[in-house]
Amino acid sequence: MDLNSDLGEGFGRWTLGDDDALLAIVTSANVACGFHAGDPTTMRRVCAGAAAQGVAVGAQVGYRDLAGFGRRRIDYDPGELTDDVLYQLAALDGFCRVAGTRVTYVKPHGALYNTAVRDEAQAAAVARAVAEYDPTLPVLGLPGSALLRCAAEVGLRTVAEGFADRGYAPDGTLVSRRDPGALVTDPDEVVARALRMAVGGEVVAVNGASLPIAIDSLCVHGDTPGAVALASRLRTALTEAGLALAPFAPGDLLRP
Amino acid sequence: MDLNSDLGEGFGRWTLGDDDALLAIVTSANVACGFHAGDPTTMRRVCAGAAAQGVAVGAQVGYRDLAGFGRRRIDYDPGELTDDVLYQLAALDGFCRVAGTRVTYVKPHGALYNTAVRDEAQAAAVARAVAEYDPTLPVLGLPGSALLRCAAEVGLRTVAEGFADRGYAPDGTLVSRRDPGALVTDPDEVVARALRMAVGGEVVAVNGASLPIAIDSLCVHGDTPGAVALASRLRTALTEAGLALAPFAPGDLLRP
Amino acid sequence: MDLNSDLGEGFGRWTLGDDDALLAIVTSANVACGFHAGDPTTMRRVCAGAAAQGVAVGAQVGYRDLAGFGRRRIDYDPGELTDDVLYQLAALDGFCRVAGTRVTYVKPHGALYNTAVRDEAQAAAVARAVAEYDPTLPVLGLPGSALLRCAAEVGLRTVAEGFADRGYAPDGTLVSRRDPGALVTDPDEVVARALRMAVGGEVVAVNGASLPIAIDSLCVHGDTPGAVALASRLRTALTEAGLALAPFAPGDLLRP
Amino acid sequence: MDLNSDLGEGFGRWTLGDDDALLAIVTSANVACGFHAGDPTTMRRVCAGAAAQGVAVGAQVGYRDLAGFGRRRIDYDPGELTDDVLYQLAALDGFCRVAGTRVTYVKPHGALYNTAVRDEAQAAAVARAVAEYDPTLPVLGLPGSALLRCAAEVGLRTVAEGFADRGYAPDGTLVSRRDPGALVTDPDEVVARALRMAVGGEVVAVNGASLPIAIDSLCVHGDTPGAVALASRLRTALTEAGLALAPFAPGDLLRP
Repeated sequence: MDLNSDLGEGFGRWTLGDDDALLAIVTSANVACGFHAGDPTTMRRVCAGAAAQGVAVGAQVGYRDLAGFGRRRIDYDPGELTDDVLYQLAALDGFCRVAGTRVTYVKPHGALYNTAVRDEAQAAAVARAVAEYDPTLPVLGLPGSALLRCAAEVGLRTVAEGFADRGYAPDGTLVSRRDPGALVTDPDEVVARALRMAVGGEVVAVNGASLPIAIDSLCVHGDTPGAVALASRLRTALTEAGLALAPFAPGDLLRP
Repeated sequence: MDLNSDLGEGFGRWTLGDDDALLAIVTSANVACGFHAGDPTTMRRVCAGAAAQGVAVGAQVGYRDLAGFGRRRIDYDPGELTDDVLYQLAALDGFCRVAGTRVTYVKPHGALYNTAVRDEAQAAAVARAVAEYDPTLPVLGLPGSALLRCAAEVGLRTVAEGFADRGYAPDGTLVSRRDPGALVTDPDEVVARALRMAVGGEVVAVNGASLPIAIDSLCVHGDTPGAVALASRLRTALTEAGLALAPFAPGDLLRP
Repeated sequence: MDLNSDLGEGFGRWTLGDDDALLAIVTSANVACGFHAGDPTTMRRVCAGAAAQGVAVGAQVGYRDLAGFGRRRIDYDPGELTDDVLYQLAALDGFCRVAGTRVTYVKPHGALYNTAVRDEAQAAAVARAVAEYDPTLPVLGLPGSALLRCAAEVGLRTVAEGFADRGYAPDGTLVSRRDPGALVTDPDEVVARALRMAVGGEVVAVNGASLPIAIDSLCVHGDTPGAVALASRLRTALTEAGLALAPFAPGDLLRP
Repeated sequence: MDLNSDLGEGFGRWTLGDDDALLAIVTSANVACGFHAGDPTTMRRVCAGAAAQGVAVGAQVGYRDLAGFGRRRIDYDPGELTDDVLYQLAALDGFCRVAGTRVTYVKPHGALYNTAVRDEAQAAAVARAVAEYDPTLPVLGLPGSALLRCAAEVGLRTVAEGFADRGYAPDGTLVSRRDPGALVTDPDEVVARALRMAVGGEVVAVNGASLPIAIDSLCVHGDTPGAVALASRLRTALTEAGLALAPFAPGDLLRP
């Protein structure tokens, strides 16, 4: 099982979350690439830290929207979205290379992630950028999403992730943050849900139904109070349950 | 002899210069990388056009200053400048790769170019980024500049360029655009100066003295009225003078 | 009758359209405020020119999206949209004040204009910003749009505009630029449609039906080839048809 | 005596300092205007809070450099700097107006502040923007700076401020942050220096000499650990020393 988290989400003078603490916990780091967050100096630092600790680096590509932190859907022309994604992916890969590793997967951020769950055009635009840049890179996303379907259609490996702290609708999608049941805030419950997903292969939806879910990675959030402590508890719980924690796309295999 | 020009200097809705016309004339394209000009879609288009026509692509890295078009000196921290340069270089290289070529050299833009003529810290910061990303990439710049000296010190190949339409001070630097004699506007004189530089290895400074100058590339500007026609005349004149025009760092050698 | 056009749409080194030529033709200038286009120096220049020629200045507020020129819908939080609009409006008003005039109306730009035709939340967010800043400012928009309805609801004066070079759907909205019939390109036809709208109070829709349309302003575009010549023809034709051309919200009334 | 502090220095998702806590302590708030920090929603919130508590709002204008937080000197063309300052000032004033107050002074931020200590062209550019926008607005700055001299020359009121936590050179300028003695970190010493400046009219320079200093405002920083507690201590100490704390340019005098 893999544990992934969003890292490098500061910008210049502004910081967000505790990158160093999370690098010691997670196995995969979704690193912001400068369009919704992340400046070049932060990108270098996080890539170097990830390489040093054997954490895989994924390109967390987002909309060009620093003011909105990439959380507002933008009606991109698909071709321009492909180009914006490829630009971010290549830029981050540059910092990975100088750190002795490589970008080993791609995961969209924020509103692009959510849009690509259902919007075929944007999902295909993201997949196309990845396939063009490096067809061996897997795409990390929501099981059943348009993104993973489009990625598979262009020949990319797809990796499904689960969210132990988010509510699930009966159809397996996440409950919108605007609706009740969107967030699971009790740490004990989050850990229990994570184990049920990772070990048992199921999740209880907001209507009480048990849904089958097959995931290779669990997403832990890093920018809320208590996030690091919770991530640490999750790591311990998964390990104690007998799961080996490791990146689904390790970067060190790429090193000479 | 190489002919280089700044290309891809539009941004979104805004265009600047005639990229397609210049790609048919020059042998090396200094392509803007998104910080002072250049958006991902423009970068892709110019890289594809350059690859198709055998024009070498150089990363024209600049300050992060769209509003000032990179023409205002910024007192960067050297480490941050290195990171901003590496980011731009890697991003452009991504579009070259999908076009079947590679970035084959680096040339700073605008105020960064001018600053790196004398400012050791910024010159070294640029050189460091290039050396880290790919130590086989040459740096294109002004003969005698701190930039070429710093590039050589870290083991990079250096390539000297001349400006047929700019006035030279007796010390071989360019006359500031704020001072008289900065620009040579008569097309006949520009062509004559180009030939004298490229063939004769000398340039007449503003004080009338003849200076020796050894260049491997001539820079032609593309964003002024009549620029394309002048570039075309220069190409013809150099060819008729017996000079073979070719990139100093051809991208097609890199293709399988 | 008023003639309005988008002006000040350059940014830094990049220019778009011929502001000076259009200032001699139109009676109202929709001036970009820096979020989708327009830099402070351009804003000052256009405001000064408008004031000198008795052209009214409107704030052409847009999404924060320089790379997309404000032409991509963004799913703003309504409160943040209100704040972004108010910021732009106040900034432009500063340049009007130093030019001896004032912003005298507001017209959204691009995707914000189109979104505010039907999206009640974004339309209301724009109207709220205007009402907060200065409840005497009229809003210029499409007849029947959510924008004009929301503006009226908060007590603002509304002004309806027509587009002689755009196709109309049978319901009085504009045909999407993606669909056939979106643009009327023949200059003679544009002039004929302008006269029919302005004098006859009707427009022929794409299905051939004649629609009643009551407008106080005609929008002329300035950033296409031949745009200035067409705007000039429109002005002459309207004048010869006996219409007095004047701003619907003149700025000179505000001067001491 | 006035206590001023930089507020509203977040941007979108990113926050910096504790605006609410500082609004309860200081008498004047230097509010970021969107170019180096500060988004419209933050500006509205801080202006509303300041108006509600009788804290004066100053426009903290800065370079257009979000990535550098306005802390890197930029070689602006003076005319463009004037325009950028006027834009920011007018935008912030819009949020003050809707909060029932007005911008009542101007203080440059970061590298612009430091540059305007000695650079006549940039100092004059800032002063010109203020004088054009509203010649009754005072400028807050370093005693003896080019900024205050240029402001006085165009007829503006000038207000001198002191920094209790910064080292002073023998000529009355601040010790550069790069040099030893730049920062005074011991809270007791900061309070003692503040009292000596505010009550005694002198400051001890890094060479041990006592310099006369006449200030109307003390600047307290808000974005470091312990900053709010220290600001609170300063307020108490000054009050207990018999100084009445009040804005030098109160906004409530402007309200009807």
